[in-house]
Amino acid sequence: MATHKLLLLPGDGIGPEVMGEVKRLIDWLNSAGIAKFETDTGLVGGSAYDAHKVSISEGDMAKALAADAIIFGAVGGPKWDAVPYEVRPEAGLLRLRKDLALFANLRPAVCYPALADASSLKREAVEGLDIVIVRELTGGVYFGEPKTITDLGNGQKRAIDTQVYDTYEIERIGRVAFELARKRKNKVTSMEKRNVMKSGVLWNEVMTALHKREYPEVTLEHQLADSGGMMLVKWPKQFDVIVTDNLFGDMLSDIAAMLTGSLGMLPSASLGEVDVKSKKRKALYEPVHGSAPDIAGKGLANPIAMISSFGMALRYSFDMGDLADKVDAAIAAVLASGLRTADIKSEGTTAASTTQMGEAILKEL
Amino acid sequence: MATHKLLLLPGDGIGPEVMGEVKRLIDWLNSAGIAKFETDTGLVGGSAYDAHKVSISEGDMAKALAADAIIFGAVGGPKWDAVPYEVRPEAGLLRLRKDLALFANLRPAVCYPALADASSLKREAVEGLDIVIVRELTGGVYFGEPKTITDLGNGQKRAIDTQVYDTYEIERIGRVAFELARKRKNKVTSMEKRNVMKSGVLWNEVMTALHKREYPEVTLEHQLADSGGMMLVKWPKQFDVIVTDNLFGDMLSDIAAMLTGSLGMLPSASLGEVDVKSKKRKALYEPVHGSAPDIAGKGLANPIAMISSFGMALRYSFDMGDLADKVDAAIAAVLASGLRTADIKSEGTTAASTTQMGEAILKEL
Ligand SMILES: CC(C)[C@H](C(=O)O)[C@@H](O)C(=O)O
Ligand SMILES: CC(C)[C@H](C(=O)O)[C@@H](O)C(=O)O
Repeated sequence: MATHKLLLLPGDGIGPEVMGEVKRLIDWLNSAGIAKFETDTGLVGGSAYDAHKVSISEGDMAKALAADAIIFGAVGGPKWDAVPYEVRPEAGLLRLRKDLALFANLRPAVCYPALADASSLKREAVEGLDIVIVRELTGGVYFGEPKTITDLGNGQKRAIDTQVYDTYEIERIGRVAFELARKRKNKVTSMEKRNVMKSGVLWNEVMTALHKREYPEVTLEHQLADSGGMMLVKWPKQFDVIVTDNLFGDMLSDIAAMLTGSLGMLPSASLGEVDVKSKKRKALYEPVHGSAPDIAGKGLANPIAMISSFGMALRYSFDMGDLADKVDAAIAAVLASGLRTADIKSEGTTAASTTQMGEAILKEL
Repeated sequence: MATHKLLLLPGDGIGPEVMGEVKRLIDWLNSAGIAKFETDTGLVGGSAYDAHKVSISEGDMAKALAADAIIFGAVGGPKWDAVPYEVRPEAGLLRLRKDLALFANLRPAVCYPALADASSLKREAVEGLDIVIVRELTGGVYFGEPKTITDLGNGQKRAIDTQVYDTYEIERIGRVAFELARKRKNKVTSMEKRNVMKSGVLWNEVMTALHKREYPEVTLEHQLADSGGMMLVKWPKQFDVIVTDNLFGDMLSDIAAMLTGSLGMLPSASLGEVDVKSKKRKALYEPVHGSAPDIAGKGLANPIAMISSFGMALRYSFDMGDLADKVDAAIAAVLASGLRTADIKSEGTTAASTTQMGEAILKEL
């Protein structure tokens, strides 16, 4: 059996708690002889700042580069609001994405039937919802230069951020979206603001050409990001795969996640290019939710998004689709049994702590 | 009685139809001696392109600069998808905003009680909703330079857009938000992405300082734009006034509008600085909805957002708050009577065409 090297980066807030439940699962997989994971742990975000005054240490970056996959919790919190911009908690996550070239961020927005009522949307609008946002993750306004604040004198400053996209960046994320759609409902909706942004014009042009050249059998639609956001709120089920840039993807995937009522349940995968020789790809898996500092350390956090992110790792990094299916089934079974963490608690269900939820899923497995 | 100069720019798609209902209202106000409006009409967007191969002619720009207020319909449509970027329909609207320095875009998101069920959100989430998005409208990535597409050779192009904000731009939009909040529920939520964008860092810094210096009695909260978007979907009633930049404002105001289920009903105002001498300010009023080319020319369009935008003009440009209240009351009364255009039609209500709706509102007045 091949040994897989995992780097666990719990991060801040509820990160360590929910990671604990993944650790429990990994230990069991190892001891039951189902898989062979070698795990190492590192610091990222505020916890790295507290320890080393950086958002991620060079040592942990080296570990990340050497790992077969990174399992990431969450970063940030008011505690670090005043730390210098360069070493703020989020910088650690952004550096991981950039230095590992994790350009493709897959964010499924799935509505768990048992939780459809937790959505602020009407049941009929979200029940059965199953879409994926494919977000470009290493380009755009997140990383473009110049990115500066300049003092102009007279109490005036000027802030500049730069959105940059090259053809190849749009093509490679487009391919991820089209390939994914082929295995799903065969439809891709590309979103940009071509009526205002030159990057939107190029985005639209490249997607259109790629579609025509390589994926003519997939349905491609274009929407302006603002009306796309509207459509997402109005009738999300009209979509299958949405492909969009880094900043629009940030906004739209959060909104899509919130629509489902299942925010504490949603995983994400950030993937690099497949290496031609080793056939491997760099990958980082993280829950869509944040570090939720307000409930940290209280055993209230929902570990499902984190466990489900590990499930995505099984599927995308280790070709263990069957095991991933079993993890998904275990989560569904535990939900069906009525067990709920505080964030998804409703009348007639049974309250569970982070640990109780993690244990129940493991037992089901 | 003072004479007010209005420029009507119906634009494309359903623009001319809904503008027709405003024209009807203006004619009546004039003939009944209630007000004295001098109206002129111009072309903008695709209709200007068809006539003059520009998105707005210099003649119409001169009229716009001379008018006391501009009443704007909507621009764009698939017919002009292939026209050169510089003369695309939206360019006319963007030039009006920029050349008239209409930096403050006020977008109320109000849920009409009679329409709460038209929302995809649950009734309890939107019933009674009344928030305003204050969007910065002449800065940011919409206008920053460089804004280019460069051919890099080898089939590669590079697109660049630039987000630029200066302190004074953030301050003046902040003042609009704080002043507005004072007359409402006294709460401002500022949204940016300071964890990723330098413009977000400056935005946050300037809002915080402005609040402390000039509006300490107003509650100010900060949210990251992505989680702000989530909160908007989860529980929009937690907000009063949201202040944000041009691009986030574009996304967030559309989403907020869609939440209400009243998209065809929502007006907006784009305002310039108050001139110290004349005490006047440049202003443009337009519905939040677009040009809806698919239903254009069929008498299906809902004229309420357009009429209500004219109502905002009465309030903000002509100090006719009482008359504006009457317009609002007439709209509410017609809705209460069960009259509905196709977009808001539900069981047990009476169908009305664009004209029938306009006439009913006028009759009520
Ligand atoms: C933490 C932050 C930098 C990050 C982002 O903006 O990308 C987060 O919001 C996300 O969506 O993963
Ligand atoms: C038509 C378009 C240029 C415009 C914008 O992006 O500002 C529109 O979406 C709006 O919100 O007024």
